[in-house]
Amino acid sequence: MTETLIKFTRGVPSAESFCPDQLAECASAVLTQYCDVVLQYGPSRGFAPLRTMLAEQYGVDPNRVIVGQGSLQLQDLCARVLIRPGDTVHVEEPSYDRALTVLRRAGGQLVGLPLDGDGPDVDEMEARLKSGERPVILYVIPDFQNPSGAVLSAEKRQRIADLAREYEFWIIEDSPYRRLRYRGSDVPTLFEMAPDRVLHMSSYSKLISPGLRVGYVIAPDAVVDKLARMAEDTYINASYLNHAIVYEYERRGWLTPHIEEIKALYRPRLDAMLEALDNSLTGLATWRRPEGGFFVGMTLKADVRAKDLLKRAEQANLQLTDGRGFFAASGGDRFVRLPFCALTPQEIEEGVARLAQVVRGL
Amino acid sequence: MTETLIKFTRGVPSAESFCPDQLAECASAVLTQYCDVVLQYGPSRGFAPLRTMLAEQYGVDPNRVIVGQGSLQLQDLCARVLIRPGDTVHVEEPSYDRALTVLRRAGGQLVGLPLDGDGPDVDEMEARLKSGERPVILYVIPDFQNPSGAVLSAEKRQRIADLAREYEFWIIEDSPYRRLRYRGSDVPTLFEMAPDRVLHMSSYSKLISPGLRVGYVIAPDAVVDKLARMAEDTYINASYLNHAIVYEYERRGWLTPHIEEIKALYRPRLDAMLEALDNSLTGLATWRRPEGGFFVGMTLKADVRAKDLLKRAEQANLQLTDGRGFFAASGGDRFVRLPFCALTPQEIEEGVARLAQVVRGL
Repeated sequence: MTETLIKFTRGVPSAESFCPDQLAECASAVLTQYCDVVLQYGPSRGFAPLRTMLAEQYGVDPNRVIVGQGSLQLQDLCARVLIRPGDTVHVEEPSYDRALTVLRRAGGQLVGLPLDGDGPDVDEMEARLKSGERPVILYVIPDFQNPSGAVLSAEKRQRIADLAREYEFWIIEDSPYRRLRYRGSDVPTLFEMAPDRVLHMSSYSKLISPGLRVGYVIAPDAVVDKLARMAEDTYINASYLNHAIVYEYERRGWLTPHIEEIKALYRPRLDAMLEALDNSLTGLATWRRPEGGFFVGMTLKADVRAKDLLKRAEQANLQLTDGRGFFAASGGDRFVRLPFCALTPQEIEEGVARLAQVVRGL
Repeated sequence: MTETLIKFTRGVPSAESFCPDQLAECASAVLTQYCDVVLQYGPSRGFAPLRTMLAEQYGVDPNRVIVGQGSLQLQDLCARVLIRPGDTVHVEEPSYDRALTVLRRAGGQLVGLPLDGDGPDVDEMEARLKSGERPVILYVIPDFQNPSGAVLSAEKRQRIADLAREYEFWIIEDSPYRRLRYRGSDVPTLFEMAPDRVLHMSSYSKLISPGLRVGYVIAPDAVVDKLARMAEDTYINASYLNHAIVYEYERRGWLTPHIEEIKALYRPRLDAMLEALDNSLTGLATWRRPEGGFFVGMTLKADVRAKDLLKRAEQANLQLTDGRGFFAASGGDRFVRLPFCALTPQEIEEGVARLAQVVRGL
């Protein structure tokens, strides 16, 4: 087993979770029923039946729903519409590396809010707002955050929602892991608390398949038309065929039981990860104990440089993601993101053993 | 029939050209054979077998092939990688309105080169280069140009290729209509003449279905890695499922006969358009006689404002696209783009009759 490379880099679903036969059935059905629609160009907001379904789920007008090609692409549209070069953008620190890239590329000046177990430091955010800082966006992943696994508490959500209204910034609530809760109970979304200030994003990548590239945003009236226009001017429309496959899959009642199945697949993997960490890394690092999602975020106690850590891990046949990518400015050398969904409990155990060996040798 | 709105706005394929049963068969096949690949995340360059197939067709290394979500999206990536705000970009005038939007949005300062029947005015381009103007890109649609229908002559292609080498600008060769030639014979691509300076783009939108959103770019070594990185940082990867469907369709030998079928469908529509124009608009306008593609570009003789023309057309139950969108700076009021593929010969005849009535009344 030490011969095999173990990748603690891939924040992806397990291939075991895919259901190709059902998807082929859906593809065939929608190509029959909606042929002229799914094979043609269409409005940039996406396939109407899926948008209507989402609108009902979220209790909004379908006009506020945009379905695109995955949610990072929608993130990019949001950034290009909302950010003017030099604008301040608040982010959790650590946060999703690809989203930070997108926000930065649009000209956002990122300010990192240190992340606690119950979400970003809202006191610091409020102090910055009171001192006159005017972020255009707060980007937050409230449910089983990537990369840390943290869940934003209901109390902090309410404070953030109130601040967004008072100081008129947009909240991008990126929530692809929300439905993957393995224990405990849901916290209300920021979207429910401040629907007029929140762009709520999610996707089917973690629930059905990333290969379909179907993500969506529920946006306030004040910005949704601009987003739809930016989408049209960027890719005309995302593939309605893929949207329709997702729609058909859910319409047939397959999504909810499927989510239960993948939760049953992932829960023991999370447990294996936490148990292995308890056994091998106690005293050498601290980590969160997430109740869902894809990741356990860990901070090493040793004063290490990310470069050295990655190199030594590689020598032990273990691939890690550079922790610095998750930080807005500097920092992140001691941060390790541990994805557990695409690995078996045995691989997780072996991977953590290798990691412990590396950490002990630092 | 006058009751029915006729849309001379939709530059889309005819729904009759779609083959949903074959596509369902391909979807089913690739979901079986490539399940773990097409349903998962993957490298941003796209589904490897399709890239290898295209690489063989173009005689390049597969590393130079990027398959994305339609070609406008790839256009956007090219613009973001190649253009710095304020850079000069040469375009044909008229040109594809959506591409102009993308080039402008990346900060390009567009300079329009007047379009003749055999392509843009290369003398003017050369004079500008000699006077010290340094475009970073020439954007050109050499085959059955959108919106005019013009084909760039072999002689001008060679001059443009030579100029690109001498003055080191990139040529974006956007060529989605190339394989839809209804008569006459092919002219060599710019890509064949200057593969080191040309980003050759095309797509399956006009050949199989726009709904699949599968486009591609063959890019020079000097820029392809940057494009792939920009793609990854924007949407991770486009849907491999869609790429694989296209791959499977072509692997089964279905594409070439299908193209012959759609040419047989579109050729009489082009003929109907030209015949109707000859019958109704001689003396009132000039137009090209394209040998392929989707569009006939027409210029009215009357001195008209686009706004008035569109309004009067609408009163006659005829929808036209605003000609000004196809022009880099000002102009375009008298320009009318006439798409013929998605309309029956009867609709074309009726539409041109209404247009003639409108033009006579100006």
